[in-house]
Amino acid sequence: MSRQMHLGLFLLGTGSHTAGWRYPGALDSFVDFAAIQKIGQIAERGLFDLIFMGDNLNADPKAHPSYTLRLEPLTMLAALATSTRHVGLGATVSTTYSDPFTVARAFASLDFISGGRAAWNAVTTSNPVIGANFGTVHPDHARRYEMAGEFVDVVKQLWDGWADDAVVADRKSGLYIDPQKVRAIDHEGEFFKVKGPLNISRAPQGHPVVLQAGGSEAGLQMAAKSADVAFSVVQDIDEARASYADLKKRLPSFGRRPEDVTVLPGVMPVVGRTDKEARDKLNELQGYIGDGKAMAVLAERLGQDFSGYDLDAPVPEMDLPDTYHAFTRVLLSKARREKMTLRDLYSLTAAARGHWVICGSPETIANTLQEWFETRAADGFNIMPPYFHEGFEDFVDGVVPILQERGLFRRQYEGSTLREHLGLARPQRS
Amino acid sequence: MSRQMHLGLFLLGTGSHTAGWRYPGALDSFVDFAAIQKIGQIAERGLFDLIFMGDNLNADPKAHPSYTLRLEPLTMLAALATSTRHVGLGATVSTTYSDPFTVARAFASLDFISGGRAAWNAVTTSNPVIGANFGTVHPDHARRYEMAGEFVDVVKQLWDGWADDAVVADRKSGLYIDPQKVRAIDHEGEFFKVKGPLNISRAPQGHPVVLQAGGSEAGLQMAAKSADVAFSVVQDIDEARASYADLKKRLPSFGRRPEDVTVLPGVMPVVGRTDKEARDKLNELQGYIGDGKAMAVLAERLGQDFSGYDLDAPVPEMDLPDTYHAFTRVLLSKARREKMTLRDLYSLTAAARGHWVICGSPETIANTLQEWFETRAADGFNIMPPYFHEGFEDFVDGVVPILQERGLFRRQYEGSTLREHLGLARPQRS
Repeated sequence: MSRQMHLGLFLLGTGSHTAGWRYPGALDSFVDFAAIQKIGQIAERGLFDLIFMGDNLNADPKAHPSYTLRLEPLTMLAALATSTRHVGLGATVSTTYSDPFTVARAFASLDFISGGRAAWNAVTTSNPVIGANFGTVHPDHARRYEMAGEFVDVVKQLWDGWADDAVVADRKSGLYIDPQKVRAIDHEGEFFKVKGPLNISRAPQGHPVVLQAGGSEAGLQMAAKSADVAFSVVQDIDEARASYADLKKRLPSFGRRPEDVTVLPGVMPVVGRTDKEARDKLNELQGYIGDGKAMAVLAERLGQDFSGYDLDAPVPEMDLPDTYHAFTRVLLSKARREKMTLRDLYSLTAAARGHWVICGSPETIANTLQEWFETRAADGFNIMPPYFHEGFEDFVDGVVPILQERGLFRRQYEGSTLREHLGLARPQRS
Repeated sequence: MSRQMHLGLFLLGTGSHTAGWRYPGALDSFVDFAAIQKIGQIAERGLFDLIFMGDNLNADPKAHPSYTLRLEPLTMLAALATSTRHVGLGATVSTTYSDPFTVARAFASLDFISGGRAAWNAVTTSNPVIGANFGTVHPDHARRYEMAGEFVDVVKQLWDGWADDAVVADRKSGLYIDPQKVRAIDHEGEFFKVKGPLNISRAPQGHPVVLQAGGSEAGLQMAAKSADVAFSVVQDIDEARASYADLKKRLPSFGRRPEDVTVLPGVMPVVGRTDKEARDKLNELQGYIGDGKAMAVLAERLGQDFSGYDLDAPVPEMDLPDTYHAFTRVLLSKARREKMTLRDLYSLTAAARGHWVICGSPETIANTLQEWFETRAADGFNIMPPYFHEGFEDFVDGVVPILQERGLFRRQYEGSTLREHLGLARPQRS
């Protein structure tokens, strides 16, 4: 079979457009689990590989609600596991504000509950104010990635503490666990000391899938070393191809093959019956963003406050260390390339919080995704519906069938685990 | 209506009898979620108030499997929320090995997912070896309880950060959250610094229910101050009445009424069609415990290794500081009262890991529970089936109908939240 596209759903309560909840008929609650169950059903109707839930660890009631209010990812996805049968379930948990034993255990548990569909999006958490919710000073970028590297390594060791056949459960002899097949890890590193073993046996997938979204040099190295799926931030196909090639070529030095990491750029598709209807819909959505909210989103994404600047002058020059958020780099590059004003840039950024937006008929959108996929800018896409449920159904019922007709996307689930959907082998116990 | 009994199900994967998994036909997996869904259905058939999942944060493959292997409670109960409709869902999370922001958020999320059925069993974790899984030295008893007191207080403050009507979601104006109705907590205490607010709105129950199981002086004070349900360890009705009265009389000094805490002793009912059949069943179960395993359970419960002692001599004298585990106090008291040998004591302890065991026909068991309930040794019981599923069905289908006939237990769920099942008011925002 030819190379197949992979699709993830990026789930934020009310959709990925900053003002999507204001669209007529759109879902406007972040905590209505029945509405999330319906999203899960739509994702399975679309044969998606994965539902992925982003996260944030603080609330700012003056910011966009998607930064401020949501169900906690692990509980939400565990609950969703029982009302879905096929789709992968990816929860974001921070390596800066959690601990390896708890994380390894929770994802192994989610993997059992879901029958092998768990994925962990390992993030380092970029917003420094979050430290105050955990009684610590937020570590700097380099230190966060050093911690994250060790954290992920410890989690994988814990997942390998039990042999697949460690549970004997022999009623006759009374032997429940074969102690020879369970081992402590006795990890003592720079940041973490963890004895182990974990108090749960080896997960159905061996290792739950690891997702990674960092775009900095350290983030790319971590993805190349440890991730199964890399979420990328894109705005331009040439840049995306270069980033894709860059990540893939890092893999061999970690003993991995290029196909061992699936690269999924985030994209917000605004779908209409015609290109014009789609443009009108996007314009309507953009009209719901207040200027103040848009500037706040821009400030968050670029780590710089532009209030007081001339909105209709070109975006001012900024120097960027390579530890900056991928959004900053990608957005400023686009702004320079397209000679954007600050007003252009904040509109773009506010739409999908810095992610790529495509707009058009199902045909137009399918064409764009096909081009990106076939020219190796992507292995698939992390779909960010502007609002729910209709904004997602437009994609699933409009775009997915075209991708299927073109032989680019599955017509049925062929495996039962997320690793199987992604074409990844089940890791042997190390 | 007269005072009504409350029933919780204490859930360990394969049942509470140390060797219950060896019983013919018993469930012998700790990670089979479909089997746990069936347990949830049986609990709702029995109109139970609550399913409560105990926890432990390390694995010792040589110990009893119930100490060693299980699904993680929050993910498991979130998953169970979607296949149950009425029963409360109580997860154990340690105040020594977690943090208040994470805990407050997870239980608020579980409360939304379950429609107001979440409960948190706040434990301090007694086993000192667990520190090694979290890179810390296990704090001593006094310090753990000081931490726990502050921890629970911070969690409750976080649950009150959002007013019930803080989410406005006004499409017209674009105002999603009223910032005047969300506040930081700015907590700076001896153990925790937490700014807040939480990134989830106020939970359906206002505060998810708080469970507490400590039997030491510090544990009782914490229950009297903060808990809605107290699980107690009992072996003797007179002692249980005294403990019950002791806890209830502590409440007024915290501005609370005696009925604000529901006292539920743990009890393992072994049910047969006749008293003799039940005794035979218990004997069979006891026969599945190996001597070595029984001694290991005793050592764990009493914090002392008795290997090398004469098994048929009376239990040796031990001095107990009042910081000891409730099990130690209650078991040694019973051993002295009944002049037990070490062999008697380890058999008793191994049966239900130190909890009270009752054995008989449904009638006999109902009589005992009624006496305990009516003479104020208990407000209900935390039922610990020796094995699943039959060992639980025996109770639900045999004993519950008798309790209902006697007017002691509900014939249908009357409320929808756990607080309503327990007759507890929804807390006003402080």
